Amino acid sequence: MIKANDPSLKSWIEVDKNSDFPIQNLPFGIFKTENNKPSVGSRIGDKVIDLSALYVLGYFKNLPFEQSDFKSDALNTIMKKGKEATTDLRNRLSKLFNIENKDLSNNNHHVEQVLIDVEQVEMLMPVQVGDYTDFYSSRGHATNVGTLFRDPANALLPNWLWIPVGYHGRASSIIPSDQMIKRPKGQTRPNDDQDPIFGPSKLLDFELEMAFVTFDGKPLGENITTEEANDYIFGMCIMNDWSARDIQKWEYIPLGPFLAKNFASSISPWIVTMDALEPFKTKGPVQDPKVLSYLEYKGDFHYDIDLEVGIIPENSEETVVSKSNYKYMYWNMAQQLAHHTVNGCNIRCGDMMASGTISGDEPSSFGSMLELSWRGTKPIKMKDGSERKFINDNDTVVMRGHCNANGVRIGFGEVSTKVLPAE
Amino acid sequence: MIKANDPSLKSWIEVDKNSDFPIQNLPFGIFKTENNKPSVGSRIGDKVIDLSALYVLGYFKNLPFEQSDFKSDALNTIMKKGKEATTDLRNRLSKLFNIENKDLSNNNHHVEQVLIDVEQVEMLMPVQVGDYTDFYSSRGHATNVGTLFRDPANALLPNWLWIPVGYHGRASSIIPSDQMIKRPKGQTRPNDDQDPIFGPSKLLDFELEMAFVTFDGKPLGENITTEEANDYIFGMCIMNDWSARDIQKWEYIPLGPFLAKNFASSISPWIVTMDALEPFKTKGPVQDPKVLSYLEYKGDFHYDIDLEVGIIPENSEETVVSKSNYKYMYWNMAQQLAHHTVNGCNIRCGDMMASGTISGDEPSSFGSMLELSWRGTKPIKMKDGSERKFINDNDTVVMRGHCNANGVRIGFGEVSTKVLPAE
Repeated sequence: MIKANDPSLKSWIEVDKNSDFPIQNLPFGIFKTENNKPSVGSRIGDKVIDLSALYVLGYFKNLPFEQSDFKSDALNTIMKKGKEATTDLRNRLSKLFNIENKDLSNNNHHVEQVLIDVEQVEMLMPVQVGDYTDFYSSRGHATNVGTLFRDPANALLPNWLWIPVGYHGRASSIIPSDQMIKRPKGQTRPNDDQDPIFGPSKLLDFELEMAFVTFDGKPLGENITTEEANDYIFGMCIMNDWSARDIQKWEYIPLGPFLAKNFASSISPWIVTMDALEPFKTKGPVQDPKVLSYLEYKGDFHYDIDLEVGIIPENSEETVVSKSNYKYMYWNMAQQLAHHTVNGCNIRCGDMMASGTISGDEPSSFGSMLELSWRGTKPIKMKDGSERKFINDNDTVVMRGHCNANGVRIGFGEVSTKVLPAE
Repeated sequence: MIKANDPSLKSWIEVDKNSDFPIQNLPFGIFKTENNKPSVGSRIGDKVIDLSALYVLGYFKNLPFEQSDFKSDALNTIMKKGKEATTDLRNRLSKLFNIENKDLSNNNHHVEQVLIDVEQVEMLMPVQVGDYTDFYSSRGHATNVGTLFRDPANALLPNWLWIPVGYHGRASSIIPSDQMIKRPKGQTRPNDDQDPIFGPSKLLDFELEMAFVTFDGKPLGENITTEEANDYIFGMCIMNDWSARDIQKWEYIPLGPFLAKNFASSISPWIVTMDALEPFKTKGPVQDPKVLSYLEYKGDFHYDIDLEVGIIPENSEETVVSKSNYKYMYWNMAQQLAHHTVNGCNIRCGDMMASGTISGDEPSSFGSMLELSWRGTKPIKMKDGSERKFINDNDTVVMRGHCNANGVRIGFGEVSTKVLPAE
């Protein structure tokens, strides 16, 4: 076991038992305080840890970082140093904030420079994303979409059980939690017998996904095997991969979704490392038919992460509309990465790869309004009495995720996005 | 007329009449000489112009650049300064290298520092590409593909005449001319009744495309109109968008091409500016049905650029297999950019957007082996007597492009890529 994951560890910073951020988490993110430049931070309980301050105060001796790595507007600077370096960095934080270690906790003057109340910071995009790839790896979701739009008797397309199907998404429009979006406009064809029209999307939807962030990979022309995959993954966040279903329906044949997706994808701001997620590994589904050899893997590569989606109508309270779990994935990250690179495609530090919508077998675990409202035929009741088939203007969509094992809860915080009307 | 485009201009640097690089061109690229760092350059005839050297020698006074903008491994540093700045930079070069201007030409010591024989430089990737988008805007190509794979009577899909169809591609694997690629491996299903198999692609193909590079756009949520489009486009290059047809066929439904494309896209290393291409504008096709209003445009946005593709078998001479022209596009760049951003999708400095395969009406103008060999049914004869249905190992594919008007020829040079066997 990684020592920083020991369930018995306690920090000298107070942590509520329902917090996503005990000392066993120690995620990384980019924060900003008023009048200061963006900086790399970690988090325990309700405190953000300023890693640049820790560096300046000499607490990162013998680690392969420079101050500019922490006085940075993206985690790419620390990820560039590689897996061993970022693992050592998290281990150092674990040691410094351990209740039994007095190096920092006894120095009030230092503590004041290093810790910031979470209410006082703005969380920014954690990563400068190079390429963004979106997979389609939840069997529940693929089956639901196939049933709704094609043939219930043959819901899964012929390639789905053989290939971790994926496609390229838009990196420029990935935004952090709390950044509002506008309802997108676009071309749709509401009636197959009439010409298409232009206007605001009427079928705006969320997609509950998780995404992982990569270290630098191998040169173009070389592949990464399932066994090597873990060495190339830094950590994960939650993603709301916004979708405009009416735009998607008209545009996506034959080259896939484009404007229906690229207006925004929202992510939670803390990247939880694969090291921290290690204790929450779980077994994946039996894959039948047997996958081709380059997709075979040993050990567990699925993760037991509880996920939920809430909708907050304007001036109203939240209704949780979905409770899902990341373990419902059919294809895991090792298989996704092995497939993505098997043709020699190169990955780079900061690339982001998302799971695709995560839907379980139960209707309450579906990861999009398309599925939850069964294409609008089963409206979802809100606590305020209103109904939703898709997302309304001024709704805020919130996604959360956390793991529980051995008495330790670690989580991702949330990704929250308010939808403004189209202009 | 832009003064730097005046057909009567001559340079004190000798330029062959068949050169792509007279003083009316002045493209931008990134070059490297032995033991030196990458640097921004331009080109006249067979000379590369070292812009960093010109800066240091004081020839860029009153232009909004710093030395680090030229001592850079990507044109993004100069593009960040915006359209007016890069236009002024080209105009300054036009003035300095004009045969009537003696400021530089009379100073042999300076000339020696500024000019380098093209044989002595290595051309690198000109741009750090943020997001890469590939359109599908040639009616000839879309019709051919529809005829080959779907229904000759309904070759164009219903959305094609309404939407400049596009999809997201992979930025990390865009490579400059002369970088060799390996034949990709991947999953294919040669027989619909049998399980898929894994191995080297058997149907490796080129796609003749042109690509444009953008300046910084507007913030997320704002669109760029067809009238504004020209202000956001820096310049163009030729692209060979490599494709593995057998991988594509098995993977692309429903989310579009992925591993069939993302193993490599090769580009010509000089970015020819939209300013230089201005005299070669030409009328586009009548668009029927009439496009939706956000896709309407005024003036000419098509360009008359002759294109050709050659195949060089190993140790043999080149056979030109296609002669096409960029003016065969149905959708132009202004329409592509307006469509891409109409949902609020943001573009950034260095984004690259490709045309899609450019095919004219005549079989000799088709832009891929898929079309030229009509899915392998009409093999193409090489000068050495061999035949090609697709691309063989150790073949080199070369694409070239140039414009002619008013006695001036400007061009893109070439993109040349050798295919090595799969490992």
